Amino acid sequence: MKAHDLYADLHSLSRHAQLLSGVAALLDWDQATYMPPAGDDIRSEQLKELAALVHQRKTGAPFTKALGQLIDIESGTLLVEGLTPAQAAAVKLWRRDYLQDVALPPAFVEEFAQTTALGHNIWRKAKEGNAFGDFAPLLEKIVSLCRRKADYIGYDEHPYDALLDLFEPGISTRAVGELFTELKGGVTSLVSSLMAAPQVDDRFLSGNFSADNQLTFSWKLLEDMGFNRSSGRLDLSAHPFSSSAHPSDNRITTRIHPTSVASNIFTVLHEGGHALYEMALPADEYGSPLGQALSHGIHESQSRWWETRIGKSLPFWRHYYPILQGHFPEALGNVPLESFYRAINKVQPSLIRVEADDVTYSLHVILRFELERALIEGSLAIVDLPEAWRAKMVELLGIEPSTDREGCLQDVHWSMGAFGYFPSYALGNLYGGQLFAAFEKLHPNWGERVAVGELGFIRLWLNENVHRHGRRYTTAELLEKVSGEPFNATPYLSFLKDKYSAIYR
Amino acid sequence: MKAHDLYADLHSLSRHAQLLSGVAALLDWDQATYMPPAGDDIRSEQLKELAALVHQRKTGAPFTKALGQLIDIESGTLLVEGLTPAQAAAVKLWRRDYLQDVALPPAFVEEFAQTTALGHNIWRKAKEGNAFGDFAPLLEKIVSLCRRKADYIGYDEHPYDALLDLFEPGISTRAVGELFTELKGGVTSLVSSLMAAPQVDDRFLSGNFSADNQLTFSWKLLEDMGFNRSSGRLDLSAHPFSSSAHPSDNRITTRIHPTSVASNIFTVLHEGGHALYEMALPADEYGSPLGQALSHGIHESQSRWWETRIGKSLPFWRHYYPILQGHFPEALGNVPLESFYRAINKVQPSLIRVEADDVTYSLHVILRFELERALIEGSLAIVDLPEAWRAKMVELLGIEPSTDREGCLQDVHWSMGAFGYFPSYALGNLYGGQLFAAFEKLHPNWGERVAVGELGFIRLWLNENVHRHGRRYTTAELLEKVSGEPFNATPYLSFLKDKYSAIYR
Repeated sequence: MKAHDLYADLHSLSRHAQLLSGVAALLDWDQATYMPPAGDDIRSEQLKELAALVHQRKTGAPFTKALGQLIDIESGTLLVEGLTPAQAAAVKLWRRDYLQDVALPPAFVEEFAQTTALGHNIWRKAKEGNAFGDFAPLLEKIVSLCRRKADYIGYDEHPYDALLDLFEPGISTRAVGELFTELKGGVTSLVSSLMAAPQVDDRFLSGNFSADNQLTFSWKLLEDMGFNRSSGRLDLSAHPFSSSAHPSDNRITTRIHPTSVASNIFTVLHEGGHALYEMALPADEYGSPLGQALSHGIHESQSRWWETRIGKSLPFWRHYYPILQGHFPEALGNVPLESFYRAINKVQPSLIRVEADDVTYSLHVILRFELERALIEGSLAIVDLPEAWRAKMVELLGIEPSTDREGCLQDVHWSMGAFGYFPSYALGNLYGGQLFAAFEKLHPNWGERVAVGELGFIRLWLNENVHRHGRRYTTAELLEKVSGEPFNATPYLSFLKDKYSAIYR
Repeated sequence: MKAHDLYADLHSLSRHAQLLSGVAALLDWDQATYMPPAGDDIRSEQLKELAALVHQRKTGAPFTKALGQLIDIESGTLLVEGLTPAQAAAVKLWRRDYLQDVALPPAFVEEFAQTTALGHNIWRKAKEGNAFGDFAPLLEKIVSLCRRKADYIGYDEHPYDALLDLFEPGISTRAVGELFTELKGGVTSLVSSLMAAPQVDDRFLSGNFSADNQLTFSWKLLEDMGFNRSSGRLDLSAHPFSSSAHPSDNRITTRIHPTSVASNIFTVLHEGGHALYEMALPADEYGSPLGQALSHGIHESQSRWWETRIGKSLPFWRHYYPILQGHFPEALGNVPLESFYRAINKVQPSLIRVEADDVTYSLHVILRFELERALIEGSLAIVDLPEAWRAKMVELLGIEPSTDREGCLQDVHWSMGAFGYFPSYALGNLYGGQLFAAFEKLHPNWGERVAVGELGFIRLWLNENVHRHGRRYTTAELLEKVSGEPFNATPYLSFLKDKYSAIYR
């Protein structure tokens, strides 16, 4: 067989695995949105079943054989000629994924899937009841499963490297630690100086904001962004998320507080940013690494782009604020644009990550990274987690939660076994900062265009520079290709400093 | 291994297959309720994938081996001792299902699943555009697939026997034909005499009926019936249906016309009746024939029971009519109970099956049965179907549709490849008639209890006499066990005659 046919075979096998991953994504979405509550147990069995099947398809004899005809699995040397550079990159990525997958025994994959599918509910109840003790045994099990996962996959320096690599390929725990030290320094000194300035009034963001009108406004934003309604949905869930089964089937969720206007808006922009990425992945590459998002951090660069770089900018609200006022004339009719803009950008150390302002947000992520690393390496025991959380909050943000519900029980991620995920949130801001600087160079007048309601050119730039490549380039390559510079934190830190110094004068 | 262990092994393997069937049911539900429209193609691939996996699990070497240790697959002789009578019955049913499944080549199963998953959309568009020509090529293909299915499975007398047996085990095309001849005779003579009597006024059933209030009333009905909200949902879809992944996860849908009050009520009672059956199947028998509904006809006996025997009875409305009037005081406040009762029971030959009254309903089913039988045996060509439909309508109901949308394009079933399904609708009425006669013997005062809002005792009777048995008995056995008589159409025909003669005086 020729290279082309061998490649097509591999792609087809991989596509069959991804079909089932898409089904699992739908089951997760359904569980968070519409599933009747009693369905939890059978759903966890279904997810376990699918996880086993996906794993089997990605590691079974047919896939192993097809992959081994294109690349030497041991050494990583390509065995055929005639692949395009993109195809060659894809084959290497398939091998990378394969080595990670095949390292995990099938029984482990099933146990992991079922434990974490049940975990969501246990965590939710423990959080509702503020009962860390009810969550601790499960967390103990999940940390141990994650540690075993790291051992199966292998690592050079730190077990957390193996987990991190699942979400953010190519970056080490040490490198993240160094970056985060830089970020922590920049952010904490900025926060100190902002806290010393006169504070921002944001009381008018609370009031009466009918859920129906909030939803109407959400759809206006999504449609203007280019969210394709025929291939996407917006629903409600307790914890907003985005999910994709294919470029033609994308689901995002928000939550609406009828007493508060900001949370839903920025959630919709955030999740909408994720969806635009998935919607723009090349459908004919579905099932291949060229049809997949690059990393969780790059995904987060897209969501944060729309949420913060565009959605919390003054030009954006020059266009949208009158529309928003039209929906809520009583609450916002007498509030000037400038006051609204300052309010949505108010900086204030707070307890809950998902409600944090854009400046202190990274500190929440750094806290979780440091605790995760300690849990995985075994230097922090589960029983000591609540206290360690409180201590870190004081260290990083100068405040302390009075309950675990507002402390170490606040996030869903650990119940899902997603150790290694949190760094992507902060990395996404850094990646986005560097990408935005490049975008701004090409479109120095972006603010003027956004101020008259033009958003399409932004999406097109992202389609062209990020989305369409799938995993063709590594994160480092993509950043360098787009910005002409190696990955660095400077653009993001400069942006934060410039923007917030101006707001706080 | 002992019989008990061998049985447990087989049950476990079967359970794994059913888990995936439940996933497919969820995908179908999602496609009809929430899936973005562009998701059709990838959904059809997912369904094809799952159909192949389910088929593989039900026919693969592990299942074949486990089954073959309990029963001689060739002869049907049990090979072990020590099974309970229920287990022995289950093993025989597993063999029955196995022989049907293994007769179908895997490629055929996949082609069938994908064609019918795509078929829904093609049918929907053709119906919208009243363009039979756009549906005809697909229907041609589906009829040919169904005919091939019949050939694979095998039959004694008529290829339709094989298809019928998938929905209604143990009854032949010939037997259905004979029953339907009896039913046709009884119903058409009843319709003639009713049409000669003074007609019923039902104009007040059309008007202003807010969708919100209709939905509130729907939930009141469902909760009173005993529909468990923690293990069931009610949603909206263009074509109402019920779907179950497990006793703990059941989905039903309705459609609400804000200009008409009756359709939603009887849809909810109907689909609710299906759901009560699935909710009451023994969860510890999940994956075994003892945890599955007996047949489509028995399922339909449950839905029609709640829709027509209870929901269209006078005692029911003695309790619920004042509540309904409370929701719609303007439209119904001045309409007396007796008039409402007569209106919802109005008999009038009409074009659309799902809107037909309870008397003419069976004629719609008989029409489809006769056309299906002709299509499958090849005595009717697809191209002649629209004309054959019109002719049969005139023959059976004395009216003729002016469009195919109201004619041979009206039902979804053929696009789903569900040839053999329609008879279950009429059989369900007959089964229900016989079961109800037995229920009435035990509860001669049922009307008095229903008139004060008691419904629980009905559900408990159905749980006890029908639901909990799963497929333990054949339909014939169950009917005889419950009623003390062999299956016959007399109770249903007597009920129709007595009820409608009284209404039409």
